[in-house]
Amino acid sequence: MNALRFDGGLKLDRDAKIPRREGEALVKVISAGICNTDLEIIKGYAGFRGILGHEFVGRVVESPDSQLVGRRVVGEINVGCGACKQCLEGDSRHCASRSVLGIKDRDGAFAEFLSLPVRNLFEVPDSISDETAVFIEPLAAALNIPDQVSLNSETKVAIVGDGKLAQLIALVAQQTDCELTVVGKHKEKLKLALDHGAKRVLLDSHALEPELQSRFDVVIEASGSSSGLSRALKLTRPMGTVVLKSTHNDLTTLDTSQIVVNELTVAGSRCGRFQPALDLLIRKGLDLSYLVSLRLPLEEGVLAFTRMSEPGTMKVILSMI
Amino acid sequence: MNALRFDGGLKLDRDAKIPRREGEALVKVISAGICNTDLEIIKGYAGFRGILGHEFVGRVVESPDSQLVGRRVVGEINVGCGACKQCLEGDSRHCASRSVLGIKDRDGAFAEFLSLPVRNLFEVPDSISDETAVFIEPLAAALNIPDQVSLNSETKVAIVGDGKLAQLIALVAQQTDCELTVVGKHKEKLKLALDHGAKRVLLDSHALEPELQSRFDVVIEASGSSSGLSRALKLTRPMGTVVLKSTHNDLTTLDTSQIVVNELTVAGSRCGRFQPALDLLIRKGLDLSYLVSLRLPLEEGVLAFTRMSEPGTMKVILSMI
Repeated sequence: MNALRFDGGLKLDRDAKIPRREGEALVKVISAGICNTDLEIIKGYAGFRGILGHEFVGRVVESPDSQLVGRRVVGEINVGCGACKQCLEGDSRHCASRSVLGIKDRDGAFAEFLSLPVRNLFEVPDSISDETAVFIEPLAAALNIPDQVSLNSETKVAIVGDGKLAQLIALVAQQTDCELTVVGKHKEKLKLALDHGAKRVLLDSHALEPELQSRFDVVIEASGSSSGLSRALKLTRPMGTVVLKSTHNDLTTLDTSQIVVNELTVAGSRCGRFQPALDLLIRKGLDLSYLVSLRLPLEEGVLAFTRMSEPGTMKVILSMI
Repeated sequence: MNALRFDGGLKLDRDAKIPRREGEALVKVISAGICNTDLEIIKGYAGFRGILGHEFVGRVVESPDSQLVGRRVVGEINVGCGACKQCLEGDSRHCASRSVLGIKDRDGAFAEFLSLPVRNLFEVPDSISDETAVFIEPLAAALNIPDQVSLNSETKVAIVGDGKLAQLIALVAQQTDCELTVVGKHKEKLKLALDHGAKRVLLDSHALEPELQSRFDVVIEASGSSSGLSRALKLTRPMGTVVLKSTHNDLTTLDTSQIVVNELTVAGSRCGRFQPALDLLIRKGLDLSYLVSLRLPLEEGVLAFTRMSEPGTMKVILSMI
């Protein structure tokens, strides 16, 4: 099969092996989204080698559970050992020996086929388009935030960043009715955030700082860059919380005394559950295609990565069909 | 009066003005301790200029409350505006316009006299020696930790650091009956921690890492150096908590993806309340003089700072009488 492989360089592998794993389902990928984490992996993040991609929608073609065959599905990306305390409690996100689709010890979704355990798969109802379904993984990651930190109508929230994940977080935050400001560096993306969740947007610049400093109860760092955390710390009020979302290959340099003196809490936040994301999409009838900049066939995956890293680009979708 | 002043350089000022402030008490300082924060201030931390020192015991010589005159006291170091929400709720530690003794907008305790509001002062009972009383400020800071994060007999706790603050934190952690490991770089200091609170001590080296990695529920970073946080993050189990105590002038470089991927919480922790610290000293009859390396008169303050920064030195006490 065709697959987009990273082995130190990114290339289209026209001879990749179809990934059949015993006890798992084989999924024919329909579409997959390129995530900022994918861009970071090809810079060296996570030390991954293999087929990239972890945001996808596909159709089951083989499965130990025959009822699943033919169904359109999305899939949670962490595959636990099934035997440790975490896994036995039904949450493999922190299983120490987990594999992660397209990120750790498991080939990913930028391919014609992928393999995942049946328990990782969620059927997608017809009301959700392929393009919107591709966003279920990052939407679930955004929905992890209100599970970690209380957001309500009294909470002054800032999101640092205006990219794809920041936009999904804005949508999620909107559901909590919090007082939401998005602080970003791109006028067009801020306009998008204002149309889809944010009550206020602010173009980030050094000149803005005094107005914004130490104002927000909760600041969600989703900039995708190493400068985002310092910015987030400055925006947060004493005893407030920074939710850290960005994973990147760069080291971060920061003045940690701000965390100590202002007694801030910095909470790392990674993957979420898919069911609440599906529920939200169904309940609100959300169409997330406004976040898609470009669609390219899998065979043009290398070009897609180049386009994805251009300023102003939102989601780039790879189509396998 | 004599005072140890930092104005870009550290020097003994033999002509400092006695700091009388309207509505405040005048305290004749008996002894004061040099803190790691003082060493950082003379490297540039916090941008402070003035008389240093914030750990002290003294005797009230003038006071709006005449009953206080003649009493031996210690003093909380944050002086709030008295009018903001924080101050009205009785906690000026995060008042935005606070001054802080010897750290921010207020001359400190390395002097014959200091001034503090009556509400900041706590009488010290005769059972507590001058030398132990000097530790009440950092002991209160250590006691802030169990207010922020739950520690009990089930909690695997590591302290990164074996200096003065780390030793006080070990004492405090011992009270919670948690499973306490102190990870430090100095054999003699680790021995001290083992005698006073720690169940296990480990000499930190790169070779130790695999044994320690991702093991602890709560890791308390009290190393006083910028390398401590990275070490603490490595020791913490997924979804565990790092309590960050060190303030220093150096920037910290770290791989923040560990925080995100393992969903760690990093909680900044600064000053604590004095009353619980006094209560603990009285209840346990603790004598903290084992933490004192050296006593020097105020007039030898510059030398005291030099000695304090030598490896292996614990607390250096300046005596004013």
